[in-house]
Amino acid sequence: MDETADTRQVATAYVDTLERRDWARLTTLLTDDVVYEMPQTRERIRGRAAFLRFNREYPGDWHLRVRRVVADGRSAALWLDVRVGEEALDALVWVDVDEAGLIERITDFWPEAYEPPAGREHLVERF
Amino acid sequence: MDETADTRQVATAYVDTLERRDWARLTTLLTDDVVYEMPQTRERIRGRAAFLRFNREYPGDWHLRVRRVVADGRSAALWLDVRVGEEALDALVWVDVDEAGLIERITDFWPEAYEPPAGREHLVERF
Repeated sequence: MDETADTRQVATAYVDTLERRDWARLTTLLTDDVVYEMPQTRERIRGRAAFLRFNREYPGDWHLRVRRVVADGRSAALWLDVRVGEEALDALVWVDVDEAGLIERITDFWPEAYEPPAGREHLVERF
Repeated sequence: MDETADTRQVATAYVDTLERRDWARLTTLLTDDVVYEMPQTRERIRGRAAFLRFNREYPGDWHLRVRRVVADGRSAALWLDVRVGEEALDALVWVDVDEAGLIERITDFWPEAYEPPAGREHLVERF
């Protein structure tokens, strides 16, 4: 496979192993010093051990499914359908792999629902 | 150029023309029946004319810069640095082009900053 196909595969496998809580497999996808960032809270986790623990300890009955993925060289963007208990939300994830194909950086965004501002009702429909 | 390179270019040009308020050029990048969606507010705008008006009327001194782009076939994901007045934020945009290379679908996410939940301070640093 080419680099883009490898990146697409590892990005998808990352989500699948999280969903299956397959920590052993997830470990094999990450560099030792993987960096995980959440820009909305300005939080950063350094290293595979801490990142695995973060996921093992993450509260709630969470489930992840890849809705869409685009890969380009050693970077991929994922759009996830997330379910936490009864709540459905979207997540946007950027993944970067190193030259060996291991994930070295993950950036997670969790956009929340909000009410639209007034003044554009003449242009939009709701879904 | 191949399809991916074309998609990467049109996705970048879309942001650049918005930033320059170059409505004439922006028009040439879009299909007649382009669909623009904001999943956080469940708003949808149908058609190039309404979408152009939405952007022309959008309030505030907004500025857009492409931080990152990944393209893959006829889809691209963009991570934008946005500035509205003094406020800096991120936007995540998914763009799909038709077989002629025109943008037929745009999905915009605007993740907002929030305070991290308690209980993970032992794993994270703040930036």
